Formats: sequence, structure tokens, C-alpha cells
Amino acid sequence: MPAINPALASTFRPPVMEARRWIEGVSFPPERPLINLSQAAPVAPPPEPLRRAMAEAALNRADAHLYGPVLGRAELREAVAREWSRAYGGAIRSDEVAITQGCNQAFCAAIQSLAGPGDEVILPLPWYFNHKMWLDMQGIRTVGLHCGQDMIPDAETAAALVSDRTRAIVLVSPNNPSGAEYPAETLRAFRDLARERGLALILDETYRDFDSREGAPHDLFADPDWGEVLIHLYSFSKAYRLTGHRVGALITGPARMVEIEKFLDTVAICAGQLGQIGAAWGMANLRDWLAGERAEILARRDAMASGMAGLDGWRVKGCGAYFAWVEHPYRMGSAELARRLVHEAGVLLLPGTMFMPEGDAQASRHLRIAFANADRVGIAALLQRLAAFRP
Amino acid sequence: MPAINPALASTFRPPVMEARRWIEGVSFPPERPLINLSQAAPVAPPPEPLRRAMAEAALNRADAHLYGPVLGRAELREAVAREWSRAYGGAIRSDEVAITQGCNQAFCAAIQSLAGPGDEVILPLPWYFNHKMWLDMQGIRTVGLHCGQDMIPDAETAAALVSDRTRAIVLVSPNNPSGAEYPAETLRAFRDLARERGLALILDETYRDFDSREGAPHDLFADPDWGEVLIHLYSFSKAYRLTGHRVGALITGPARMVEIEKFLDTVAICAGQLGQIGAAWGMANLRDWLAGERAEILARRDAMASGMAGLDGWRVKGCGAYFAWVEHPYRMGSAELARRLVHEAGVLLLPGTMFMPEGDAQASRHLRIAFANADRVGIAALLQRLAAFRP
Repeated sequence: MPAINPALASTFRPPVMEARRWIEGVSFPPERPLINLSQAAPVAPPPEPLRRAMAEAALNRADAHLYGPVLGRAELREAVAREWSRAYGGAIRSDEVAITQGCNQAFCAAIQSLAGPGDEVILPLPWYFNHKMWLDMQGIRTVGLHCGQDMIPDAETAAALVSDRTRAIVLVSPNNPSGAEYPAETLRAFRDLARERGLALILDETYRDFDSREGAPHDLFADPDWGEVLIHLYSFSKAYRLTGHRVGALITGPARMVEIEKFLDTVAICAGQLGQIGAAWGMANLRDWLAGERAEILARRDAMASGMAGLDGWRVKGCGAYFAWVEHPYRMGSAELARRLVHEAGVLLLPGTMFMPEGDAQASRHLRIAFANADRVGIAALLQRLAAFRP
Repeated sequence: MPAINPALASTFRPPVMEARRWIEGVSFPPERPLINLSQAAPVAPPPEPLRRAMAEAALNRADAHLYGPVLGRAELREAVAREWSRAYGGAIRSDEVAITQGCNQAFCAAIQSLAGPGDEVILPLPWYFNHKMWLDMQGIRTVGLHCGQDMIPDAETAAALVSDRTRAIVLVSPNNPSGAEYPAETLRAFRDLARERGLALILDETYRDFDSREGAPHDLFADPDWGEVLIHLYSFSKAYRLTGHRVGALITGPARMVEIEKFLDTVAICAGQLGQIGAAWGMANLRDWLAGERAEILARRDAMASGMAGLDGWRVKGCGAYFAWVEHPYRMGSAELARRLVHEAGVLLLPGTMFMPEGDAQASRHLRIAFANADRVGIAALLQRLAAFRP
């Protein structure tokens, strides 16, 4: 058989699919059904008016089915430019916005525009696994940046990791997997570091709609030269429950956008039209609904944080948006613990080993809980099962 | 500004978007509207029953909006496995089928599983431009293989181009841009060459539904070990007019599929669910309709080929599926000719320079005509305008 590209072979298999295999064939009794908190994915469909708008477009509009521009539908790019300019107090033009087939693809496009084999990219630890996978398969070296106890990375610590092969620093805020919300001054410090050293700052704000803070989480877009250093990423998946349509966004300056367009044309041709129509409809019509979603998730976050605080030996290291990053009290590693929780507690969580380099001591001590998928009753059930777990 | 990755900078901008810029701001008089034959894209929406099925799914099915498996929805993978096994007289299992966000992405996944920077891939000339772009941006060297006068590549000629860095040979049949339908014995010869030299044969059959030949176009799937050497690509876009939904397929053996899954998880997470629902519905319900579409395109092909034969100095080199590859009679290069045809004839065609290396003599002599986008009246109008063109 023709050989496998060693860069692709070197990376790991998709963690979420791997976790799905753990529950295949396992029967969960009706009195203790599976609590699956492995993926950051809404479990309910979009609200009925959005589904209706999409259904009407599918039935009546030819352009819902045919190719659109590589960089996205004009109305969606314009809506993002307008709303982001307002929300962040900056000036963002629609030609600085690209629509992608989901936010993972936006990250791939950003990296492709910056780095190649032998280059280096700094990722805070724990990382989002698909970021690590893309860097691996592109032959780019991941330089891990340990966070403090509050799960916030430090720009000075990062500065010591910059080499002449470093091309970018990637930040995710609110963070996946830790849930941490990065302070505005942290983001400014990283922006300054990136500018000083000629790097790009990739800022993934997939979970921005569920940030617990009021107002703009940072002022990076207020900098008139933001487009040279910043690449902002976003996903419409969580806000409007459109995960199955794959619609994300990338915002950067026009010079880089010319290169981003080449990548998106080749990998995608365009993002799905109906998903884009849905995203634009959501932005125009679901502001109040989304505010309610945010309030509900913030309530779940409180239930999660206060509930975990009462669990013997467990410790919440970060908690926000969709995720909690928790330290467990057992002698076994997190990979073994996650497997045993499936069978002995009917709970599916991803182990820290999926978010950190092999052998990192932190990896085996932690788990990610994608708590936003559970309502408050579900969170209470999770906490009960963890409390009752006796390894 | 942080530097652009030189591999991405080295490739060209999307040809279809480039051509769109040529017509921006140009006014076409009502008595001579633009004839746009630049892209292989249906201009009409899917048939009404398919639109209705998709609209109903959008309104009523949660799973039409939420994440699905990385490798695609089970019902679509099973339908492809069944139908391909029947059509090609082979045994293809559903776990050997991956659903991708369009066929471009299937190609990217195939290459990622095979080759990295410094490796080589053989592409017949003229090439499909997005293939060349992906190889460029991945740092893979494209080795061009000139075809004969009939636009059919020759395996013996290709054998002389194989080096110890060659990882794959890519064939597209029916071909984009030449329209050529490759004989079964040609495909067998390339398969044998690939097997002998430890290469993969990537066979892109995006236009298989419009092949003029009856029955299976090749017997590669009848080989019990097909999965080791063959990577087959397909698109649902043309058959069911679903270009805006981005649904394609990749078929290969299970060992490579493990690696393909890593790539698709990272770049896509999954293909759009509603597009997949539409594709599966189309396969189950539109067989007769698709046969009618094929008959119409074959009739356009005949109109194209016979019409061009009567045009002084022009020569049809290949004609099939969506495309004709034609030699023009003028002293100017094809890039200049294409620009002048916009302004002086109201016709948009892509020049040969978009499908071949810079400086190749063939490039400046040829144009691609995506004639399937025009009906027979439109084709007659095109021929009239080309006949009247006086440079």
C-alpha cells in the first residue's frame, strides 16, 4: 500500500469520535441513563422561527442551493462587520470578514496563511485538540505554554518561548477546554508581544456569546492597525444551534485575506449557503433569544461551579461558557478515570490527556466537563454520580 | 505585518473569482447579455421535490441542524456503497466511504494522507486548478503530464516521470477542463503503474453522472485489492444541483480511512447535515430525473461539438460532461483573448493559462468552455458570437 504521510500519521485520532467508541455497545440502565458531556454541542435544534426561515429558503430560493462567493454571502459578511464594530468599538469592514465552513476551518486557514513545516506556533495548555491536530499534520511544531492556577496564560512567560521560527500565538477566550475568560489586559499584552516580535495573534472567540462579562471582552479592534496583527475566529454554531451546518468566520486585514481566499477556495469553494442564510437570519432576529440562552448557560455555570465546590477532593480550575476544567482526586490517570466513569457512573467526559502533550503531569490530573449540554437537573445528577463514584 | 506563508503566497488566486472580477462594472447591453461559461455550476435550483424534502427536514428534524459523524451520515455512506458496488461491479463497504464538504475537500484529504513538502504528484495537463493550488500550498511539487491530441494521458509516458518522491497520480474522468472520457484500459494501465511503483491512484469522477458511455466506465473496483491503491472522489453537486451545500465523497480502503478521518475532523468536523439529507434523498428518488439531466447535457455536448466544427480556425480537442477544451485561431494568447471576449463578444470563458504552468505553449492556445451551463439556444448564441468576433 502507498505510504501514509508521516505528518498525518503522527497526530492522534479525533478525540470526540474516540470517546464515542467508548460508549459503543455499553448498555446504560433506564434508571441511570448516560450523561454525555464530551462535546460542546447543543442537543436541541435551532428555535422554530429560524428553522422555518431556513425551510422557506430551501423551498423557494435558488441561491440557497447554488455556489456563492468564496469569502461568504455579502449580507452575512456585512452583518458581522456591523455587529462586531459595534460590540468591540472598532472599525471592521465587510471585506475583512470571511465566512468559513465552521470555525475549525477558519483556524486551518489562519495557520495556512502564516506557517509551514518547521515553523512554530505557541498554544496555551491545555489546548483545543483540533488546533494541535492541524499543526501536527502541517509539520508545524506546537510550543506549549503552561497557564497559571487561574488558567490564564501570561504574555511574559510566552515571550521566553518565542524563537525565530515562531509565527503565531493562539488564544481561545472564553477557553476550550478550561472555560477561562481572558482579561482584556492579558489580550492586550499578547497583542503587544505579537506585534513586537512580528507574530500573528490568533484569537478564537467561538464562545464569545456566553462570556459572563458585560460589554466588550477586549479592545483589540479599537487599535487602528488591528488588521495587521490580529486574526479573530468565530463560530455561528453555538449561538444559533447550527453545528450541523458548519458556518464560522475569520476576521483579519485585507492583505492576509487575499491569501485566506486561496485556501478557502481550494478546501471549500464556499461555506454552505443555507447555513449562512440561517446565521444571518439569527443575527437579525434572535438577539433577545440569544440573551436568554446566555443567561441559561451562566446559570448552569453557577450550578456547576458551586456544585463542584462541594465535591470532596475535586477542584474547579476553570469554569465558563461551555466548559469546566476540573482536577480529580484519584490516584489513577484521567484516561483510565474517564473510561471507568463510563462503565461505573454512566458519565462520559474527556480526559485531560486529550488536551495536553503525552506525559504532561497536568494531563492525567484533569478532566473537561462540557456542562452546557446538561440542564441544571442534569448537572445535579452528574454531581451526585461523581460523589457516589468509589474507585 | 507577520509574513505570509510562502507556500500559500506562491500559488495563484482563485481563477473563478478572478474571472468574476473581469466582468465587474462591465455593462452588457440587453440585446447582447453576458454568456457566462466560466464555471461548472448548475444555474437552476434542485428539482422541487428535493427542495421540499430538504425544507421539511429543516423544519422538523433536529438532526438536520446538529453535528453528525465526521465521516458522514450512515444512510448516505450506505447508499453510496450500495450504488457504487452495483454500478462498478465491485464490493464497496460503507466504512470505505467518507462524506466530505465538497469534492475539493475530498481531494485535499486524499493528498494530505499521501504526501508532504518535497514530495511529488503527477497531474495530467491541463489540470483542474484547485488541485494545483492545494499541491502548491502544501509544498508538494506538481509534475505535469502532457496528454495526446485526444486529451487522454498515457501511463507509459507517466512511468518516465515517476521518481522516488512521487506519491500519487491524479486522474479526472470525465475530465475537467478537457471533457475527455478516459477509456477503461487507460485507467487500468495507470492503476497497474501506481501499484507497481507504490503510488496511489486518485481518480476524481465528479462528472461520472454525465459520462456519454453506457455502463461502468472502468472495472477498478472489481479488483479485490482496489482499496490499497485507489482513492475515488465524487461530488453530489452536479447531479442534484447542490453546489451551495458542499457535499462530496471519498472512497478508499479502511487503513487510509483512519487517516482521512483525522483530516476531516480537523478541517470540517462534519459535512453539512442538510446537504447530506438532500444527497441521500436524491440518490433514492431522482434516478429517472438524473437520467433526463444526462440526456440533456449529452445533447448540449453534441450541439457544442458539431457547432464548433463549423467555426473557422477553431478546433475542439476534448468535449464531454460539462466541458469543451478548444484551440482558438488567433495570434494573441488565451489570457488576452478571454479578456477581449468579455468586452467585444459578451462571453466569459476561462483561458488555458489557468489550467497549465506559466509559459506552456498549449496554455495560450486553448480555452475552456463550461458549456453545460448554457442550453442549446445559448450554445448557438455563443457560436454566433465567436464566429462574429474579429480581433
